[in-house]
Amino acid sequence: MNEYVAIDTLKFLLYNVHQVEELLTKERFADYDKTSLDIFLDSIKTFSDTALFPFIKDMDEKPSYFKDGKINVHPQFENIIKTAGELGIVGAIFDYDDGGMQLPSTVFQAAHFIMSAANNHVPGYFGLTSGSANLILSFGSRDLKEAYVPNMLDLTWGGTMCLTEPQAGSSLSDVVTAATPTDQDYYQIKGQKIFISAGDHQFSSNFVHLVLARIKGAPAGIKGVSLFVVPKNRSTENGEFTYNDAAIVGEFEKMGQKGYCTTHIVFGDNDDCRGWLVGEANKGLSYMFQMMNEARISTGLMGASIASAAYYSSLKYANERPQGRKLNSSGQKDATEEQTLIINHPDIKRLLFSQKAIVEGSLSLILQSSIYLDREMTSSSEEEKEKYNLLLEILTPIVKTYPAEKGIESISNAVQILGGYGFCSDFMPQQYYRDIRIIALYEGTTGIQSLDLLGRKITMKNGKALELLAIEIQETIKKASNFDELQPFANTLLENLGLAQKVIGVLMPHAMKGNYERFLADATVFMDFFGTIVIGWQWLKMATVAKQTLEDKNGNQPELFYESKIHTMKFFYTYEMTRTKGLAKTMMNTEELTISVSKDIF
Amino acid sequence: MNEYVAIDTLKFLLYNVHQVEELLTKERFADYDKTSLDIFLDSIKTFSDTALFPFIKDMDEKPSYFKDGKINVHPQFENIIKTAGELGIVGAIFDYDDGGMQLPSTVFQAAHFIMSAANNHVPGYFGLTSGSANLILSFGSRDLKEAYVPNMLDLTWGGTMCLTEPQAGSSLSDVVTAATPTDQDYYQIKGQKIFISAGDHQFSSNFVHLVLARIKGAPAGIKGVSLFVVPKNRSTENGEFTYNDAAIVGEFEKMGQKGYCTTHIVFGDNDDCRGWLVGEANKGLSYMFQMMNEARISTGLMGASIASAAYYSSLKYANERPQGRKLNSSGQKDATEEQTLIINHPDIKRLLFSQKAIVEGSLSLILQSSIYLDREMTSSSEEEKEKYNLLLEILTPIVKTYPAEKGIESISNAVQILGGYGFCSDFMPQQYYRDIRIIALYEGTTGIQSLDLLGRKITMKNGKALELLAIEIQETIKKASNFDELQPFANTLLENLGLAQKVIGVLMPHAMKGNYERFLADATVFMDFFGTIVIGWQWLKMATVAKQTLEDKNGNQPELFYESKIHTMKFFYTYEMTRTKGLAKTMMNTEELTISVSKDIF
Repeated sequence: MNEYVAIDTLKFLLYNVHQVEELLTKERFADYDKTSLDIFLDSIKTFSDTALFPFIKDMDEKPSYFKDGKINVHPQFENIIKTAGELGIVGAIFDYDDGGMQLPSTVFQAAHFIMSAANNHVPGYFGLTSGSANLILSFGSRDLKEAYVPNMLDLTWGGTMCLTEPQAGSSLSDVVTAATPTDQDYYQIKGQKIFISAGDHQFSSNFVHLVLARIKGAPAGIKGVSLFVVPKNRSTENGEFTYNDAAIVGEFEKMGQKGYCTTHIVFGDNDDCRGWLVGEANKGLSYMFQMMNEARISTGLMGASIASAAYYSSLKYANERPQGRKLNSSGQKDATEEQTLIINHPDIKRLLFSQKAIVEGSLSLILQSSIYLDREMTSSSEEEKEKYNLLLEILTPIVKTYPAEKGIESISNAVQILGGYGFCSDFMPQQYYRDIRIIALYEGTTGIQSLDLLGRKITMKNGKALELLAIEIQETIKKASNFDELQPFANTLLENLGLAQKVIGVLMPHAMKGNYERFLADATVFMDFFGTIVIGWQWLKMATVAKQTLEDKNGNQPELFYESKIHTMKFFYTYEMTRTKGLAKTMMNTEELTISVSKDIF
Repeated sequence: MNEYVAIDTLKFLLYNVHQVEELLTKERFADYDKTSLDIFLDSIKTFSDTALFPFIKDMDEKPSYFKDGKINVHPQFENIIKTAGELGIVGAIFDYDDGGMQLPSTVFQAAHFIMSAANNHVPGYFGLTSGSANLILSFGSRDLKEAYVPNMLDLTWGGTMCLTEPQAGSSLSDVVTAATPTDQDYYQIKGQKIFISAGDHQFSSNFVHLVLARIKGAPAGIKGVSLFVVPKNRSTENGEFTYNDAAIVGEFEKMGQKGYCTTHIVFGDNDDCRGWLVGEANKGLSYMFQMMNEARISTGLMGASIASAAYYSSLKYANERPQGRKLNSSGQKDATEEQTLIINHPDIKRLLFSQKAIVEGSLSLILQSSIYLDREMTSSSEEEKEKYNLLLEILTPIVKTYPAEKGIESISNAVQILGGYGFCSDFMPQQYYRDIRIIALYEGTTGIQSLDLLGRKITMKNGKALELLAIEIQETIKKASNFDELQPFANTLLENLGLAQKVIGVLMPHAMKGNYERFLADATVFMDFFGTIVIGWQWLKMATVAKQTLEDKNGNQPELFYESKIHTMKFFYTYEMTRTKGLAKTMMNTEELTISVSKDIF
């Protein structure tokens, strides 16, 4: 019995559905073959089984805490940081030249999924260090790279992203942290940042903060925001380190992910905080956004992985707990019979299939997007590069949001399977239910992602991204249509593609007329609608590969494994795809209910 | 600004929509008029403002705990128990002859809603004492009434309901707690019960447990279950009290409602636990079920009240927090403008309307059901009694479930409005998000309620309950149709009534053919579907009264108050009623996806 993740499904998705081996023909990945990828994934699974999963409950019960200016995380992090450093997790996708492993991003995301399902309080520490190192590598000077990246690769130092400020929240154009030029190579930094994930801990000797700040005199709004490297401790001329006036002043106490610290940092309270500009002035936000796709994929992945852990936890319970009896043909139960396992009740099966559909559908989409990312990176032509970039751009807000929002529902179903025990701290689902609630808020809330999807991605380059996505979906429909069993579902997907075009056709004229508020008022409903169709595409793709494998009799799993993919696809189309018409109707309403009224109506 | 409940809406529902004053013409309620009801509700609001709401956060942070065989609840309970005793809350709806206030149940539920919205960790202590006293009053001997009820009325003693056992869970036919007859008037009780809400605390000197147990030799299943009064301390011949071998052995640690204890009780571990039979042997479950409608209404009410508190908490935040700017006609924001309050963003309005629609729709249905309960109780003819009983029976599982399930969604929307702060312990929505998750599990899970709705209530007396409900709904449709503005929504409700008939027409033949598993496989989907239609009925009813009041210009609230009801009705029809067709399609599928497969498919 799987405890938090199904490796067989993960490998089916990687190798069969998304054919990651095709990527290995690219020069960048030439050193890898299926065997070496499997060895890497197996080592991550062993790490997760031994160093991560056994501690997730204890990290919830003994949260990271702030005391005397310091963040203290769970003692197990000492071992975790050391082992993760040895495994090369931070630099897994970096170039060999930068000390990385040059792994395909898709494979790394699969590894990340395993770790995060085992213990979602942990991988953010690796991810933020990796992301901030990547920013320095991509846009920083050679000096900055040499000064910071090597120590980050093995987690001797940690990295963070400092975007949010108390008065601005999601509105990054309102960042006020100030950077004052000096006659040296650095700026004086002054300001405060909140919600800094992985912001500090006792097992890395230094932290490298990537800070958005405004150089004195810069233009208002996002066009005046620059990016700085601001270490917690800076090196001095004699090679020693001195405190750089970057003070942890508190930690946010949260309802979940309690092992993963969220800090409040004050820079330059004593006017002695130095920051080094990354790249050019006033381009900070554009640099950040070039890392955003990966960060958002990782966040969605974290949501899907928590839902995975909850799914397997509730599945285990359903397979062990006897309760109730089957109804006989008079609609009665025979109390003298033995109780049946609850997994035999149709409603429990419904709760399980609903989780399986959300978890595996999300995971498939995550890997799909990662494939596009890898293909973009390794494209030989500009045209191909643009194609994969646009596909990635349009899917990213969905990858971030679908697992976050539907993951809540999925885990609520896991809680429900345990009955009263689901609410009790002795069992895991209640922790996952708390943990996952952050995912729809991190890295751009669902509202922000939805504005991005409808307001930017659907309209970008005259709808080219959407057009490319429609071609990909139609290709899946065509392949599925070769099988009688799948034909009706292929037809449904095609209808839904048409419905999406129709909805966009109704909404776009509002934008054309300059009524953007109206155009975007139901963006979140559009996200739900379009996300459901996209996951429906992934399920049809999975079912088609499963069906083909059954026909070819060349699977390395039992037949029931492939049948279960086809069955879950049918479940998704029967219980989830049926929602799209209602959502379309909502979006095409002419009432303008959320625009036409003043705030006093509440 | 309301902090947890809107009294103006509550009174609009009580007096205008559900016309509670009509009840006061009944002899039972003849001592009351609108003024005295208002005084009662005002006293409850004052109690809630001063003794309940200020302590809800502290009760979460300092949970009730078990130590040395005792449950310790928050110290504020000393004051709460005393004041609630003085206010007569336990006996509010009891007969004068039994020491009660003979209040209409509808008014008492309104009072309960205020208290529970203020602090959902508290009213269960009153409710269980009231419920167990009511069981003794309804079915117990005169001796039992005299021995127990007077001390329960002022909470000197507390009461509990002991149903669940570890091996049986929801399956009450598997209760094994044993009752052995003696040659005295009592039975020897032996067994254990879990999940005993309000099971003990330091501020009541005795507890009266109402325990389901099986008399030696009783038939298997629910037909062999009897009901016993088992006090924690029993009186002796000399009028002293001695411990009755009913040991608290632990408390369930929970993710929410931490101030409300959930205990594990072992009866008769030293073979000295005495229980007194209530009513006749083997009828225990039928007695319990006669109290069940009220218990289930109260549970749904608790869900709606928590969602109310979260709604007002997020509304306050949305009205105070500036962030972001409006889009101009080029779809851009002007960063030099001041930030706007987030309540001015359409997506925030959508999140608020969605909460308002769920909270007020649920509350209206709760009061509707309570009106039926009061009318059943005061009916002069058997025919009328049956009518209101059937209406109550069919609505009860929905009243229990809709606020529980949609309340989770509602509170998740409250969390989302606060952005990152929504996940932080400093703010209330995260607590409400945890608190409400128990509601779908208490008093019969959503799965159990859904089987009850489709399997028993829809089919009972050849569909008579459904027929009566349809008449009530059609009456609302007819009244609404007098107003042009409401006509389209009345039509939608009528269509949905037809759709419900159609779905039932597709499902019923499975039952006729003895295939109950198939008939009930999607009962939970039916609950979602039918519950949405029923809440749609309540919204149309509210909107019709609001519209009539505006036309008659005889409201005691500003016009915007009535307009907001009509507007929220439109929101519900545009964003929620659009879901029913998809759910109908799901239920009418022929795939049998949750029945046809073995448990090994997962």
